Amino acid sequence: MTGREFFTARTVSDALAGFRPARRTATEDVALDAALGRVPAVDIVAPEALPGFRRSTVDGYAVRAADTYGASEGLPSYLDLAGSVRMGAAPTVAVPAGGCVAVPTGAVLPGGADAVVMVEYTAATMPGTIEITRPVAPGAGLVRADEDVAAGATLITAGRPLRSAELGLLAAAGVGMVAVHARPRVAIISTGDEVVPPSTPTLAAGQVRDATASALAGLVTEAGGEPVLAGIVPDDRVALEAVLREALTDADLVVISAGSSVGARDETAGAVAALGTIWCHGLALKPGKPTLLAECCNVPLLGLPGNPLSALVVFRLVGVPLVWRLAGCEVTPPEPTTRARLSRDLASATGRLDIVQVRIRDGVAEPLFGPSALLSVLTRADGYLVVPEPATGLDAGSEVEVTLYR
Amino acid sequence: MTGREFFTARTVSDALAGFRPARRTATEDVALDAALGRVPAVDIVAPEALPGFRRSTVDGYAVRAADTYGASEGLPSYLDLAGSVRMGAAPTVAVPAGGCVAVPTGAVLPGGADAVVMVEYTAATMPGTIEITRPVAPGAGLVRADEDVAAGATLITAGRPLRSAELGLLAAAGVGMVAVHARPRVAIISTGDEVVPPSTPTLAAGQVRDATASALAGLVTEAGGEPVLAGIVPDDRVALEAVLREALTDADLVVISAGSSVGARDETAGAVAALGTIWCHGLALKPGKPTLLAECCNVPLLGLPGNPLSALVVFRLVGVPLVWRLAGCEVTPPEPTTRARLSRDLASATGRLDIVQVRIRDGVAEPLFGPSALLSVLTRADGYLVVPEPATGLDAGSEVEVTLYR
Repeated sequence: MTGREFFTARTVSDALAGFRPARRTATEDVALDAALGRVPAVDIVAPEALPGFRRSTVDGYAVRAADTYGASEGLPSYLDLAGSVRMGAAPTVAVPAGGCVAVPTGAVLPGGADAVVMVEYTAATMPGTIEITRPVAPGAGLVRADEDVAAGATLITAGRPLRSAELGLLAAAGVGMVAVHARPRVAIISTGDEVVPPSTPTLAAGQVRDATASALAGLVTEAGGEPVLAGIVPDDRVALEAVLREALTDADLVVISAGSSVGARDETAGAVAALGTIWCHGLALKPGKPTLLAECCNVPLLGLPGNPLSALVVFRLVGVPLVWRLAGCEVTPPEPTTRARLSRDLASATGRLDIVQVRIRDGVAEPLFGPSALLSVLTRADGYLVVPEPATGLDAGSEVEVTLYR
Repeated sequence: MTGREFFTARTVSDALAGFRPARRTATEDVALDAALGRVPAVDIVAPEALPGFRRSTVDGYAVRAADTYGASEGLPSYLDLAGSVRMGAAPTVAVPAGGCVAVPTGAVLPGGADAVVMVEYTAATMPGTIEITRPVAPGAGLVRADEDVAAGATLITAGRPLRSAELGLLAAAGVGMVAVHARPRVAIISTGDEVVPPSTPTLAAGQVRDATASALAGLVTEAGGEPVLAGIVPDDRVALEAVLREALTDADLVVISAGSSVGARDETAGAVAALGTIWCHGLALKPGKPTLLAECCNVPLLGLPGNPLSALVVFRLVGVPLVWRLAGCEVTPPEPTTRARLSRDLASATGRLDIVQVRIRDGVAEPLFGPSALLSVLTRADGYLVVPEPATGLDAGSEVEVTLYR
């Protein structure tokens, strides 16, 4: 009880800009059906042009555009039907001057043609002859052989998580395996004499089940990481150092969910200082002040506040961008947001980022208060709003942007 | 080439409101570490109060609040230090009148105490005596035994996907298994004589690799479903009916990625009509007009347009909400959005929903045009904007909301 923490407080934006570990996870090859959300380690270049052939984009007739010039409902062009193209097969006829070939959407354009007239602007009134009632320009109704992707063009850019559309483009290009960064392994160490595993059926006096580790594991998974629960360590420097050393051999990021007492937090800072370099201890953030950022043996380390709510706020703001960065993704993918009107005045200290949990009803954001020891504040929240560092608060009725929990 | 499609076009909002299959997936029990994003099938009630004991929320001294009334820096209250409470253990002393007990954050409040004074407002100037320099009210510095959750209160509400915070609350309550809806199995049937598997090393003339199925599988996975690739069927009614019958025995939703030709689309509609009831064929949507919604043997069925871009637009708008609904979640979780200024005028037909792919640079949304046969339009896009049914277009410079692809 005699200790006082030494805070060299930094703003959150300082921490995000300044604490930038060089570590990146190794590269591994994954099949396309397991690649969603994974971060490509290298650019992927198109091995061939796509679609690879001149392709009709409409159901209609392949023509020489010049043969349709001047055509109208009143004075159609009459073209000789030279044949048709089957889907998925090479054309067996070409379009002669004054002729046309029937093509379905997606078929190969026959030789000689430079445009396709939509079936809607044609009529087959006499056998072997097609009436064209509208002129087309060269290039109408088709895509070029390299219009989707040119051979050698970049299909996929390194560092950007793969989305569904990219999976489609890779499939189209016949790329079945992708080199991606391994999922960052995030070791989660829980500390505290009072903390027991969630599986504990009956609690003794003063014990609490480890809620933070399970919630952190969820956030790690959402950020594309692989959570590794490293267990619960009592408030004992030697024990914590041993678990920390072990975690550092295998993890890409170590997260310590510290005990809530000042003694526990002191032990954590001491153990971390013994194994690496503390970059900052203290963020100008509420909740989340007693946050610790360090690097040990080339592994970044994040020491979280003891209260579950505070720990989760800090991990969202600081930990999630770190997990993405370790996987080679510099820009954290966006979260859902919504705008709402604030239901009441919110006070805030200048120079500090305030994270306020809110419920949203009918476009009104209602702040949820309560000690950060209470996890139910988070489960009742639809999202959070940020009162930025320079502000001294927000007025009731002002429009705020709320980041929504998914 | 002679067929014309018969469209009974509906608006997208009509389709979302009106096409509401009753099917829900079965319930299964999953462990907490596999429950992220899953949809609880029933409410979960707290088996006991949380935290379960009166708990200090600060490092300090447990007191009888009345003993601190009138205390100030100039005129402190002096209280006898009766002992201390260890983390995670039952107190061995109570707070007598005129006394106090040292408590760390998170410890059990000793008997007799009704408040905790923060250590910052105390001094230990004489052995066995603590100076209190600020008064506290009853209830200060603590949470009640049932303040996080009361025994019997609802921890988790059915029908809402589990977020990280809920995983934490369930862990705190000692709930290790959760009854959730099974992931909806979504059979994806690709059709088209021109379509070949993505693994095809060299394409013959007119062939294209199946891009849509891989991209759809990604969207299904994001929506919490389990994609089942049911293979590629040629444009043949009998073959399609056979694959459809097989898929209907096992799937919760069947998606047909139709061939692009009008013939292929006719075969699809015919096969579906033979096995079930078509709810609508045609949406007032661009791209995405030739969409088919049906129900066959109690399984909803979605027939997508032949172009990959159109197919993915329709699946996002109509398929994703269906997948969530099948898993018991009525409100589709929000997607990330951002506001941007439109770079140019956009024309649109009244009565039709237009989905426009956009790139965003420095707050400006630049529409991406190109035939919907081109998947690269989607991979270049950061998101899409919606021109609603009543609008005839949007003006350059107007503020638009863009849904961002993750």
